[in-house]
Amino acid sequence: MQVTSRYRFAAAHRLDTPALSPEENRKLYGKCNNPFGHGHDYVLDVTVRGPVGEDGLVVNRDAFDTLVRHAVVDRLSHRNLNADLPEFAGTDCVPTTENLATVVRDFLMKAWTLPAQLVRVRISETERNTFVWEAGR
Amino acid sequence: MQVTSRYRFAAAHRLDTPALSPEENRKLYGKCNNPFGHGHDYVLDVTVRGPVGEDGLVVNRDAFDTLVRHAVVDRLSHRNLNADLPEFAGTDCVPTTENLATVVRDFLMKAWTLPAQLVRVRISETERNTFVWEAGR
Amino acid sequence: MQVTSRYRFAAAHRLDTPALSPEENRKLYGKCNNPFGHGHDYVLDVTVRGPVGEDGLVVNRDAFDTLVRHAVVDRLSHRNLNADLPEFAGTDCVPTTENLATVVRDFLMKAWTLPAQLVRVRISETERNTFVWEAGR
Amino acid sequence: MQVTSRYRFAAAHRLDTPALSPEENRKLYGKCNNPFGHGHDYVLDVTVRGPVGEDGLVVNRDAFDTLVRHAVVDRLSHRNLNADLPEFAGTDCVPTTENLATVVRDFLMKAWTLPAQLVRVRISETERNTFVWEAGR
Amino acid sequence: MQVTSRYRFAAAHRLDTPALSPEENRKLYGKCNNPFGHGHDYVLDVTVRGPVGEDGLVVNRDAFDTLVRHAVVDRLSHRNLNADLPEFAGTDCVPTTENLATVVRDFLMKAWTLPAQLVRVRISETERNTFVWEAGR
Amino acid sequence: MQVTSRYRFAAAHRLDTPALSPEENRKLYGKCNNPFGHGHDYVLDVTVRGPVGEDGLVVNRDAFDTLVRHAVVDRLSHRNLNADLPEFAGTDCVPTTENLATVVRDFLMKAWTLPAQLVRVRISETERNTFVWEAGR
Repeated sequence: MQVTSRYRFAAAHRLDTPALSPEENRKLYGKCNNPFGHGHDYVLDVTVRGPVGEDGLVVNRDAFDTLVRHAVVDRLSHRNLNADLPEFAGTDCVPTTENLATVVRDFLMKAWTLPAQLVRVRISETERNTFVWEAGR
Repeated sequence: MQVTSRYRFAAAHRLDTPALSPEENRKLYGKCNNPFGHGHDYVLDVTVRGPVGEDGLVVNRDAFDTLVRHAVVDRLSHRNLNADLPEFAGTDCVPTTENLATVVRDFLMKAWTLPAQLVRVRISETERNTFVWEAGR
Repeated sequence: MQVTSRYRFAAAHRLDTPALSPEENRKLYGKCNNPFGHGHDYVLDVTVRGPVGEDGLVVNRDAFDTLVRHAVVDRLSHRNLNADLPEFAGTDCVPTTENLATVVRDFLMKAWTLPAQLVRVRISETERNTFVWEAGR
Repeated sequence: MQVTSRYRFAAAHRLDTPALSPEENRKLYGKCNNPFGHGHDYVLDVTVRGPVGEDGLVVNRDAFDTLVRHAVVDRLSHRNLNADLPEFAGTDCVPTTENLATVVRDFLMKAWTLPAQLVRVRISETERNTFVWEAGR
Repeated sequence: MQVTSRYRFAAAHRLDTPALSPEENRKLYGKCNNPFGHGHDYVLDVTVRGPVGEDGLVVNRDAFDTLVRHAVVDRLSHRNLNADLPEFAGTDCVPTTENLATVVRDFLMKAWTLPAQLVRVRISETERNTFVWEAGR
Repeated sequence: MQVTSRYRFAAAHRLDTPALSPEENRKLYGKCNNPFGHGHDYVLDVTVRGPVGEDGLVVNRDAFDTLVRHAVVDRLSHRNLNADLPEFAGTDCVPTTENLATVVRDFLMKAWTLPAQLVRVRISETERNTFVWEAGR
């Protein structure tokens, strides 16, 4: 049985890599390269897998929510990814949603204490763009 | 090719297990342990897999809908899971959505007469919580 | 300028009036008369109207959310309307969503301390049924 | 007959007013006062009213879309409201969605050349917060 | 109190008026003028207003649904508006959603037998385009 | 990492196979066999898989969007599948959404020039019916 919980957080980002010239950045990232940034209401789905216990649960809801909120949502909500996140600020790592999904997976893995297994992290930047990491694929 | 059909049903439930004291139940299930129950508009997605026939279909729509409605929706719609379902009433089985998903899968498997293969049952309790059973995983 | 905030709460109810016989109740309310009740994930939209202040706000967000949560959501969330709410329990008042909308409006009016004016209460029982009270209409 | 067209744009903002101390700003705007800003996927609904012409239309779709895109979406999409918009940058006007709705209405009114009447501007910051300006109310 | 019920129907249409040349039609209606037509999943919201009765209802749900299904949905569902509807076939009336909303309102008014008052008809062609008729406006 | 982009297109179709009598067609396809056709707002999700590059992307957004629009959306948007698509017009192939999904997959595969791998094509006919092709399953 798989259980997925949904979370939302608003954040700002700007796509720009020091490896390219301003013109190349503009060409590669389009409007996402606008100098002062823009933002999104990200939707995060975290999926775990495990057997159903005698209490009828795969995972304790409170423990699950608390872990995701502490490990991910509280760090990202109402933040500027380029300026506020050490994973992006002052690094070569561009805060695309691909890289954000990897950061979120790492946040979760480092904090993981639940018996159920983390199997999927899914982030929608908008309803038009979705990014998925799956364990073992 | 996979085909998924969506169904909705409103039902009430209360989470409480005879294996625990009232206080432990309250701590484990939180507000879902409130004595008189509460309810949800469950969303059910049933997925089948099979080859596309000469009629352009994986599965006959009417046969599919009729089977799911008879086997699942008619038994659950506008019901109290704790009181109306023999699978939960008077048993130790707590009507969490994990256990509900298992019950729905069993309802479907027992009634299954379609040539296409049942491969997934997905139930959303709310837009924030989703539960998935997949064949062979 | 009008500002609308959205809230969600899960609750159970059963439609049954002492003024009618069991058969008449069954005919009038259909499946909503099932004896052990069922439930919904209600969506509540509360709308206020007022001028925009120097802080750029029609209403302080925290004060608005706190008022609605205390006055409405905390009383209704994960409750059985028939059994848990004094407005319905032991009365002739049937917990239809029409009557629930009136109860919610009264809860809000009694607790109202905000400078902005309460102008609309909108409750969706499901995505198919919506109920609206508007001030002065 | 009223006709409403929907548009979407991603933008960043930060709520902070020079009239208050940093601490007061923090208290008033909460997480929305975080120094480096955050962002949203705004949903904009523009409503016009008028008679239905012989061509079956209240308003020419292309003309309507072109006007809204030029006057509003192109100026706001992938922008930082605090830094990129002259209506907010270097002014006392805080880019709350209330003020943003007023700015959008002014953008539309200044550019308006359609025979149908502009009657409503509705902006959702998130699915939880919506702001409406209506003509003559 | 206002009560709104939602219905859905799939239909095909093509926008083309005999009053204009092929080229002018193409220019006016764009892709909607493509010769063999296209289609939509229309969403219809019907709103009534009235006092809440002793049964807790503004309008009997079954009577409301039956009336709208007979008067509107059964005539439009899985139809080609240009070819199947006498209101459009062989007439100068172009099946824009503006004109469709007027037709739906007329269907409802002619069939109306409910004590509650019909106050609004709202049709969404897609999530991007919505059309509203309101009584007395 | 998987990346999914969403597209929408409106189209008309009619389900009818020359292999069956009119009565059998009517029985098999129900209202979808209505002679003049009907239509839908199809939702198309295209998923690719690949490693995240130094630019933080699995796939260049512009290249991805341009390919899908040219190969699929421009050919299907505002079209009648039975009459406008050579894959269906004058053939025995019935434009069910199963067959449409296969056609879309073939359109994409023929036009594919991206380094990321095409792994899934998902089409929703309505929110109630979804069809998925997955590579290697």
